[in-house]
Amino acid sequence: MIEFERALEEVLRRTRRLDIESLSLKEAIGSVLAEDVKSKFDIPSFHKSAMDGYAVCAKDIESAPVDLKCVGEIPAGRFYPGKVKKGECVKIMTGSPLPEGADSVVMIEFTESSPPSFILPRKGGGGEESEVLPLDGSETPGDRWGCNLVRILHRVSKGENVCLKGEDIKKGKIVLKKGTVIRAPEVAVLAILGRAKIRGYRRPKASILCTGDELIEPGHRLLKFSHIYNSNGPMLRSLLSSMNIENQYLGIAKDKEEDLREKMKKGLKDDLLILSGGVSMGDYDLVPKVLRSCGVKIIFHKVSIKPGKPILFGLRGRNLIFGVPGNPVSTYLTFLILIKPAIEKMIGKKISLEIVKGIIKTDFRQKPGKRKHFLPVDVKMKHNERQIFPVKTYHGSADIASLLPANGFMVVDADVSFLKKNSKVDIILW
Amino acid sequence: MIEFERALEEVLRRTRRLDIESLSLKEAIGSVLAEDVKSKFDIPSFHKSAMDGYAVCAKDIESAPVDLKCVGEIPAGRFYPGKVKKGECVKIMTGSPLPEGADSVVMIEFTESSPPSFILPRKGGGGEESEVLPLDGSETPGDRWGCNLVRILHRVSKGENVCLKGEDIKKGKIVLKKGTVIRAPEVAVLAILGRAKIRGYRRPKASILCTGDELIEPGHRLLKFSHIYNSNGPMLRSLLSSMNIENQYLGIAKDKEEDLREKMKKGLKDDLLILSGGVSMGDYDLVPKVLRSCGVKIIFHKVSIKPGKPILFGLRGRNLIFGVPGNPVSTYLTFLILIKPAIEKMIGKKISLEIVKGIIKTDFRQKPGKRKHFLPVDVKMKHNERQIFPVKTYHGSADIASLLPANGFMVVDADVSFLKKNSKVDIILW
Repeated sequence: MIEFERALEEVLRRTRRLDIESLSLKEAIGSVLAEDVKSKFDIPSFHKSAMDGYAVCAKDIESAPVDLKCVGEIPAGRFYPGKVKKGECVKIMTGSPLPEGADSVVMIEFTESSPPSFILPRKGGGGEESEVLPLDGSETPGDRWGCNLVRILHRVSKGENVCLKGEDIKKGKIVLKKGTVIRAPEVAVLAILGRAKIRGYRRPKASILCTGDELIEPGHRLLKFSHIYNSNGPMLRSLLSSMNIENQYLGIAKDKEEDLREKMKKGLKDDLLILSGGVSMGDYDLVPKVLRSCGVKIIFHKVSIKPGKPILFGLRGRNLIFGVPGNPVSTYLTFLILIKPAIEKMIGKKISLEIVKGIIKTDFRQKPGKRKHFLPVDVKMKHNERQIFPVKTYHGSADIASLLPANGFMVVDADVSFLKKNSKVDIILW
Repeated sequence: MIEFERALEEVLRRTRRLDIESLSLKEAIGSVLAEDVKSKFDIPSFHKSAMDGYAVCAKDIESAPVDLKCVGEIPAGRFYPGKVKKGECVKIMTGSPLPEGADSVVMIEFTESSPPSFILPRKGGGGEESEVLPLDGSETPGDRWGCNLVRILHRVSKGENVCLKGEDIKKGKIVLKKGTVIRAPEVAVLAILGRAKIRGYRRPKASILCTGDELIEPGHRLLKFSHIYNSNGPMLRSLLSSMNIENQYLGIAKDKEEDLREKMKKGLKDDLLILSGGVSMGDYDLVPKVLRSCGVKIIFHKVSIKPGKPILFGLRGRNLIFGVPGNPVSTYLTFLILIKPAIEKMIGKKISLEIVKGIIKTDFRQKPGKRKHFLPVDVKMKHNERQIFPVKTYHGSADIASLLPANGFMVVDADVSFLKKNSKVDIILW
């Protein structure tokens, strides 16, 4: 039997980050970037209007109100192919490129124009708008742009309502570093840089195999009074799914070597195989033996924790195998403190497991034992402190219902028999 | 233009919780239970051994060490069909039902047996084990059970190492209440109760439609210098996916009524349609007009927030329509403070949007305006307080890169021009 800290260290030391693969933006969420992402261009890539209004030269309207000749209009996605001369302006939409000769934008609210529909229709000559305008400026002003007078009511400072080229992101800048976890803002930044794919760390494929002649799947009838429903299978699937880990469920293996071996083999191909049950010392706890016969090297079996003592960790090549005890609180705990950290390391994430402090709000007594004790607690934030309320009904590793009011585990050292109300305790938040 | 609080109230008031549907345990994670779940039986459903060992009558071994005759063995999933008499014991595995006549279990570590393999093979008569034993006790002891002597080294108290019938969950108890959010422990409890399906609130189907002639999808070439990459489409997909909301992406609509209407119609069938862009006051901002022509009732258009002012909210029957501004920070913010709460209400969840307090760690100045200002900040927990560091480079709603170092928004009232270092500020954590 080894200490928990040693077990975690062994798991992390022997778990390798998975290889790198190409991910679409849709797949990337929650993944870890395996490359530095540079911007190949300035963002914005041109001086851009921040408002709907008129592009002007600030100097030209110092004595506002003034009237300017509106020589054109720039809808989004288009540009004005000419130069704005003294006494002229161009109608501009938010996001459109500032035309040459202009340095500022006057908001439409601070202008008057008459007649109101002085702009020629967007579609030049009544035909279909060309979707791809030449980039070489071969269109000349006047060809397709209307002209009219606009009264500018207020002056603006030079550069007002203009976003300068490169002000958001400079060309060549490393915008996202290797190791960044992709959230929605990172997706948006990748998209704005034109990236549809990224290089990220592969997520593991996982399998779950439950064992035990007593188990019946939920939704079916219990055939003997000594049968119970399988809760670990569905729970482990949920735990993996909530980490966005693809998982296949291999069902329930009978307590027979052949059946166990046959089903186990399917899961041993995956990066991660979680077996539930069959790891205690009972005569029918065949998991360690059958794992060995399948070429699994058992790194440890039994950790000094309560519940969860019989947890087993093994390797087959680079693939990880965990054997978790059959009682559901043990399964939940060992997933949280050993399997989840391993998955985080596989996908290149920072290990999120953290022991923090809280204030226990009742006296707590326990029979001192030999193992670190993890107990379900309800953690409430109040007055900027974590108030800890142990789940009173909790009475051991089978008592899965005691996890319902809980959102964390309190961690109590083996030799502690009493914790006074309002003393500091270690907790792990889920 | 309405205030933010009013806008949120309008959104929530007009959003209905979706109907109830049957969900498998696999689908249920993150959903909200639409029924009270009762236990139809006791859990455990029999007095159960908590250990591998020998089932005994505690009174029988008061003078331990004593030798008992082992009259049988109970593997998991099986039961002993007879009664344990004075001077007898039955080998028992963790999780197996305590046989009649026994009231306690002695751990195997506190016993000695010789010869070591005194137990008859499990397979009665060399044939295959019958998987379905009769429940009526027609099997009699001795038929298939071995007999041998076991030395019990220590006495036990009555009930030791036994989990009593019903001690985890009593028959008839409401174990999970309507409104509970399903996490992994809830899945485990549902499973242990034998439930393979639950009744939960349906999750919305959502569509996303981006608009704007300037937009090109990431991964493609920009055809004009005035084009930009579409970041809102991928970001909105990520935001919905991270809430586990199925979404279809309708692509980019051109700034033409026909194209917009045609693509919009596909999304108006869904519970939620999010349109990006085209909601400002520009000449090409056609979204409100086309929405109206499709029978959408516009509830509000423009909210007094910065960024995100042009946000639009409409209804078509019970379906919600949001038009978010094209600049990505506006999109991110309005999703967080208006769309996410609506989705939470649809799926029966408690609204998670919460304004909490933090301590700003630098002086902060702004030009007072007319709208509530939301600014990206990095929130660090230190000494049990939330320390707020505004993202220094942030310069407006287009500046999506400024969300990268952030994990929250600071909320500053319109008329505030200065916040002193170490003063309390409102924040929204992502």
